[in-house]
Formats: sequence, C-alpha cells, structure tokens
Amino acid sequence: MRIGELSRRAGVSVPTIKYYVREGLLPAGRLTSPNQASYEEAHVQRLRLIRALLDVGGLSVAGIREVIAAIDDPERPVHKVLGEAAGRLVPHYEGDQGGDDLDAAREAVADLIARRGWRTYPGGPAAEALAVALAALESVGHGAFAEVLDAYADAAEQVARVDIDYVARNVVREELVESVVVGTVLGDAMFAALRRMAQTDASGRAFGSGT
Amino acid sequence: MRIGELSRRAGVSVPTIKYYVREGLLPAGRLTSPNQASYEEAHVQRLRLIRALLDVGGLSVAGIREVIAAIDDPERPVHKVLGEAAGRLVPHYEGDQGGDDLDAAREAVADLIARRGWRTYPGGPAAEALAVALAALESVGHGAFAEVLDAYADAAEQVARVDIDYVARNVVREELVESVVVGTVLGDAMFAALRRMAQTDASGRAFGSGT
Repeated sequence: MRIGELSRRAGVSVPTIKYYVREGLLPAGRLTSPNQASYEEAHVQRLRLIRALLDVGGLSVAGIREVIAAIDDPERPVHKVLGEAAGRLVPHYEGDQGGDDLDAAREAVADLIARRGWRTYPGGPAAEALAVALAALESVGHGAFAEVLDAYADAAEQVARVDIDYVARNVVREELVESVVVGTVLGDAMFAALRRMAQTDASGRAFGSGT
Repeated sequence: MRIGELSRRAGVSVPTIKYYVREGLLPAGRLTSPNQASYEEAHVQRLRLIRALLDVGGLSVAGIREVIAAIDDPERPVHKVLGEAAGRLVPHYEGDQGGDDLDAAREAVADLIARRGWRTYPGGPAAEALAVALAALESVGHGAFAEVLDAYADAAEQVARVDIDYVARNVVREELVESVVVGTVLGDAMFAALRRMAQTDASGRAFGSGT
C-alpha cells in the first residue's frame, strides 16, 4: 500500500510516519520508484504498537527504539530478551536521590527478594526502581507506607502469574516478545486505572457519605 | 532559613526553587528585606514532595500544580478531594483513539464495575483510562489480554484495601490528602517495579535455563 493508505489505516499522519522511519522505529517502505515506497500489513501493526507504547504506555521515542530492537533481534534467547525488555520498561532515575535513604531502601529490597524466594537480580533495574520509590517515600515522611510492601508483592505475584500464562500461549518468538512488551506497558496502565477505581470504592466505603 | 540552606536541605538547586515558586508549586518565602526571603520547614517538605512526584511519579509540572491545589484547599470535603486527586493522577488521553474499539472497551469497563459492585463512576477518568488501555490492546491484536481483567481487579482490590487502611491512619486532613497523593503516585511506581520482579521470577521458572 502507499503511505497515504498506511496513514489512514493506522491513524497516524504522513509526517509522523516519516519521523518514525527517520528515528528507526519503523522500517522504511520498499521503493517502487525514486519517489514512492510501498508498505505492508506489518507496517500497520508496527505503527499501532508504537502508538500504544507512546500514548498509553507513556514511553519516550528512545525507549520505544530500544524495546523494538529487542523485539526484532532474532539472536537473543527468549528468556534474556524478556528480562531485558522488562528492564527497559522501568524508568531509569538520574539526579540526587543517593545517600543513606537509598542504601537502606536497597537493603529492604534485597531482604524482600530473599524473603519471597524470587529469582530476580537485587541490582537489576526493577529492584533499583523499587529502592528509589521506597527512598522517595522515606524522604517525604511516608516511610511507614513501606509496611504495605508484602501485600503489594502478593498482588504483584498474582498479576505476574496471569501475565506469564498469557505470554506462554504465544508460541512464535516474535509474538512472544511483543506480547510481553504490550502486556507490561499496557498492563501497568490497566492496573493503575483499576487501582484508582478500587480506591474510589474503598474510600467511599471508609469516608464517604453514600454517593 | 535562607534559600541557600533550603536548597541544601531539599537537594534542589536555587534556580529550580525559584522556578517552582514562579510556577505556583511552592509558596514564596517571607520577605525579610527587599532582596531576601526566609523559608520554613514546610518548604523543605513541599520540595521533597514535588521531587518525589516529578522524579518517581513522572508527573508534569502542570499535574503537580493541580494535585497541590487539591491538597491545599481546605474547603473541599475529604472524600471529594480524594476522588479528584485520584482522577488527576490518571493520564488524560488526547488524539484519535475513538471509534468502535473504544466504545466496546467502555462497555467492558461498565460491565466490570457492575460485576464487582464498585462504587465508582463509569465515565470517570480512571474508568476512561482503563477503556483506552483496553482499546489499545485490541488495536495491537492483543484483545485477548483483556481476559486477565478480573485477575487484575482482584489484585487491585487487595492493593486498594491496604492503601486506604494506611490513609485512614492519618487523622489530620492535610496529611490525609497528601498521603493519598504520595501513596497513589509512589505506590504505582512500587507496584510496577514489583510486577517486573515477579515477572522475571515467573518467566525464569517457565522459560529459563536456571540462571
């Protein structure tokens, strides 16, 4: 199909499509004449994936480029790619959150991993993101919120179990990795929305006047 | 204290502090001379809150301004402020995600709310965010992932219950609202990190080679 049809099918403007090609998110079309390229169904799919990661997942263009590189690299073993994709989907923090609070938080995370017997890496990006969140709670005077950690971990285990069950249904490697990426990013958005709705319900029951 | 000490205590540079004051995130200091202002302990606390919402929560400056306005307005009833804060902490989507997928997703969300007996608003921001995530899943060919919705909702209810238990311990109104904001934003980051770690564990058990 021509770029105009691709644009209509995926709901993405022509200049934006050209930008994604320049940024390496979307493979270029096959040239059919010096000024015209032809696009496949796979381009429609890829554009929808990019939009979902951008709009719902809130990923940056650089973040999406890394995630897509992991999906497209046929050399890496599945388990490794899944681990890398999970790592890339965690925000990386910069700045001045170091210090005693962060060291104490890292210890709390290492304790949690040991307590739950999780096969995960205490220094990995997800563990580090958790330590940063715990240190931030401490810095705003809500260190006591860390008491909910095991209740959160119980819920996270339940969610991870259904995530991996869903992923395991996809036997083709490319689909497997893509489903992890989609499930992780859109699953975060889904869970955050559900948590808000359940909070509104629980808060209405605890503090509300009935409406 | 002077602005230099405030900067050291909160780990935020002087130009950034001035920017937050201009943007209405931080109250101005009390003028002690035409060129000098004095700051209180409350400024340190507020700066830490702003940094936590920015760095860990990923909120925008505009988002933080709205959240802080809700915290600071003593007129609004607690239940209403909690609901509004929860609504503001959900991303608002623009763009072209309309259409049949989104209508079907909205119906699925209304069904879920009815099925679970949640006292929440089918057209509210959290419900709309969930519908957008479900429509995005459909658009990338992973509509089947919506089957996990009830398992996610079970986990979200558990998490919301410990959230509200924690919040209910704070009797002072200002602390109550602030603890919801902090717990919601930092709790999302905590849960997302825990979900990644639990996924790595579950994925290692399902697909891994043992390391």
